[in-house]
Amino acid sequence: MNLSELKEEVFEANLALVKMGLVLHTWGNASGIDRERGLVVIKPSGVPYATMRAEDMVVLALASGEVVEGDLRASTDAPTHLAIYRAFAGVGGVVHTHSSHAVAWAQAQRDIPIVGTTCADYFYRSIPCCRALTREEIERDYEGATGDVIVETFRERGLDPLATPAALARNHGPFVWGKSASDAAYNASVLEESAKTAFMTALLNPALPVDENLIEKHYSRKHGPNAYYGQKKS
Amino acid sequence: MNLSELKEEVFEANLALVKMGLVLHTWGNASGIDRERGLVVIKPSGVPYATMRAEDMVVLALASGEVVEGDLRASTDAPTHLAIYRAFAGVGGVVHTHSSHAVAWAQAQRDIPIVGTTCADYFYRSIPCCRALTREEIERDYEGATGDVIVETFRERGLDPLATPAALARNHGPFVWGKSASDAAYNASVLEESAKTAFMTALLNPALPVDENLIEKHYSRKHGPNAYYGQKKS
Amino acid sequence: MNLSELKEEVFEANLALVKMGLVLHTWGNASGIDRERGLVVIKPSGVPYATMRAEDMVVLALASGEVVEGDLRASTDAPTHLAIYRAFAGVGGVVHTHSSHAVAWAQAQRDIPIVGTTCADYFYRSIPCCRALTREEIERDYEGATGDVIVETFRERGLDPLATPAALARNHGPFVWGKSASDAAYNASVLEESAKTAFMTALLNPALPVDENLIEKHYSRKHGPNAYYGQKKS
Amino acid sequence: MNLSELKEEVFEANLALVKMGLVLHTWGNASGIDRERGLVVIKPSGVPYATMRAEDMVVLALASGEVVEGDLRASTDAPTHLAIYRAFAGVGGVVHTHSSHAVAWAQAQRDIPIVGTTCADYFYRSIPCCRALTREEIERDYEGATGDVIVETFRERGLDPLATPAALARNHGPFVWGKSASDAAYNASVLEESAKTAFMTALLNPALPVDENLIEKHYSRKHGPNAYYGQKKS
Repeated sequence: MNLSELKEEVFEANLALVKMGLVLHTWGNASGIDRERGLVVIKPSGVPYATMRAEDMVVLALASGEVVEGDLRASTDAPTHLAIYRAFAGVGGVVHTHSSHAVAWAQAQRDIPIVGTTCADYFYRSIPCCRALTREEIERDYEGATGDVIVETFRERGLDPLATPAALARNHGPFVWGKSASDAAYNASVLEESAKTAFMTALLNPALPVDENLIEKHYSRKHGPNAYYGQKKS
Repeated sequence: MNLSELKEEVFEANLALVKMGLVLHTWGNASGIDRERGLVVIKPSGVPYATMRAEDMVVLALASGEVVEGDLRASTDAPTHLAIYRAFAGVGGVVHTHSSHAVAWAQAQRDIPIVGTTCADYFYRSIPCCRALTREEIERDYEGATGDVIVETFRERGLDPLATPAALARNHGPFVWGKSASDAAYNASVLEESAKTAFMTALLNPALPVDENLIEKHYSRKHGPNAYYGQKKS
Repeated sequence: MNLSELKEEVFEANLALVKMGLVLHTWGNASGIDRERGLVVIKPSGVPYATMRAEDMVVLALASGEVVEGDLRASTDAPTHLAIYRAFAGVGGVVHTHSSHAVAWAQAQRDIPIVGTTCADYFYRSIPCCRALTREEIERDYEGATGDVIVETFRERGLDPLATPAALARNHGPFVWGKSASDAAYNASVLEESAKTAFMTALLNPALPVDENLIEKHYSRKHGPNAYYGQKKS
Repeated sequence: MNLSELKEEVFEANLALVKMGLVLHTWGNASGIDRERGLVVIKPSGVPYATMRAEDMVVLALASGEVVEGDLRASTDAPTHLAIYRAFAGVGGVVHTHSSHAVAWAQAQRDIPIVGTTCADYFYRSIPCCRALTREEIERDYEGATGDVIVETFRERGLDPLATPAALARNHGPFVWGKSASDAAYNASVLEESAKTAFMTALLNPALPVDENLIEKHYSRKHGPNAYYGQKKS
């Protein structure tokens, strides 16, 4: 995939967030990475979706975060995306949304529990709600620190970022990733649906009981060596 | 009805689930049965709705579960459909969805109570939430066991599967049936609306009181020998 | 207004219920009355909205309930409509819906409280949830008794049916009325919005406090001798 | 901007409220001000959105509230708008909606808490729910008093109306303002989304915890001297 194809994919992933109802106004962003060249393509900041074009995507150097191509400022959340790409090797795309139900869990400072197979097909463990940033972290480099705390959370909890491809920035909202920008956007819609049904479940049964065997089964039938969901890839 | 008509009906029932907002992405499936020939027609696994055609439907033998016609894999949930067809004689169609409110009750491990006439017109008793599968059942034949436990639940509770045409797979979601694939899809939409209003009712009045006489009346005015709802069939 | 104009208005009011999202499938009906001729025009039973035409509306005699014109069966809820027309003199139209939030209150066996001006502009007092029908009432004449109990509720509570134009049939759903079929349909949409916001209010503050003076003011600025909302009628 | 441009902007802001789903029927209004000439342009009362034209907007004198131009009555809420313009110098536009979640908080007599960055980007402090009007205030000048109590609330709580551009009229609904009519409409949509996520947060975690530093950061990165969100204005 060359850079202009990557721009096109990132552009489409940004629009997909809107089509799937995960983004209000300009409150969301998607990015993709070219790991060979060390380049990250991301949505520009504060540009309306209606007029945005593929060529408006901003290209950043993964290592330095500096703009390599593009006349517009990158999304203010770019440092968060970069921190995720740097720490989680297999990630090909990252999205950030303010989807309502995921935001509600982030604001409640609670992990989104995996209480059903809808979620377990894509997320192996509860989506972690990260700790609050310190005042120092906020003042020094707010968006970078948001990414660092996501990475810290996965490390401390021993979570595999490819098996549980999302985190909640506390009192903020979800960052979601995947194999590509479009995969990350898809995962963001799964996360929102999971957050929605888990919200109702929490009201119907605060104990949020779940069967570990079932979660294990659903995750493994779509992922791992013995996956059998979908059509065979020949 | 010949096999190609049945494929068309099953195809349309799968699309109806999407149109009625009961399915996100590819998370749903509908099937129909030709009882004379012992053939079940079901959606293929993981195929996007936008490109799916009637001729993509997969034909399975009711007795063996083996593919009789079709180049694609059957839905992974096919063994659950087959178990329902084998045990419940009058069933002509089965659907599975991840509709949000029904999933919430399944995740809460609670039956969906029949608290109003909206639901009672189509469901005579609470929609049962089945027991958890054992680890052995999950490992041996997960999807088949899901169907077996639905059948076990109806047998143990003494429920008539034609009068209460749905069950909740625990921490998973609803399986719904009917006289045909399209009737099953219709019932799935009734179930979701019932799950939605029952959810709100549970928050407004946790006692969930209901008048048995009213349920009895509503079910019987649409079903049974003295039904008088709708236009006379001449 | 002649009979064919009334049929057209009733037909349009039935469609308006669907457009406003108050009706799922065929679960709703609207009627209008010609008081001079003693005729009630109502939706036929169980006919899909997509194919229904104005001339399919059924004409009933107010006094006897018998069909005067039309080849189709009247809505099964016709006896409820008739009871309301007979008891409440100023009513020109009646609708019945299964709109989700109003149904939730009916199923919770609770009145819908008037907790805000949104509702108070159209409903002067809490929308009463009627008592359960007795087994005898259900067996003798279910739909007629549903209307009789609505009338009884207004009489016993001393409510003015024109100032509070709706009631909840217990564990069933709302019946709403107005000056005409279209006015009744409009009121049904106000009721649903009121039921929705009152539901959320009940969760945020179970005490449901309200300021009587404010309700009084809002109702009177749209109704009664000193109304000043909207454009002057010259 | 001349008066006909202002009418056009106010007209568009009124339609934007409908498009963004913040207004049911005719329950909303938007206005804009020409501070140099002391003129306020506002929606007429009770006119359906479908037939309303830009030239139907009513022009009022800021000082007296009298109609300067226009054949229709001004919105009944005009005195509330005028009170806000008179007291809050930097305000260029005001809107009033009955958006469902904001109404739910107003009816619950609770401030909408700022529990996340979605809201903090636009609102610096909790959106205050005003005190009840006295019977005397309601009888003397209801709509004017509604505005006066909003102004009183900001004064007593020491709130900056430009940093927290909204208030809840108790048991009524939100009044929202901004730099212009369209900015006020945008803020009204942010308020509704904030009310929605805060509602769910309150159910998931009644303590509604929040990190003050984060709110401070988000507000200041979009406002104030060091703002860096969006594209640079050259």
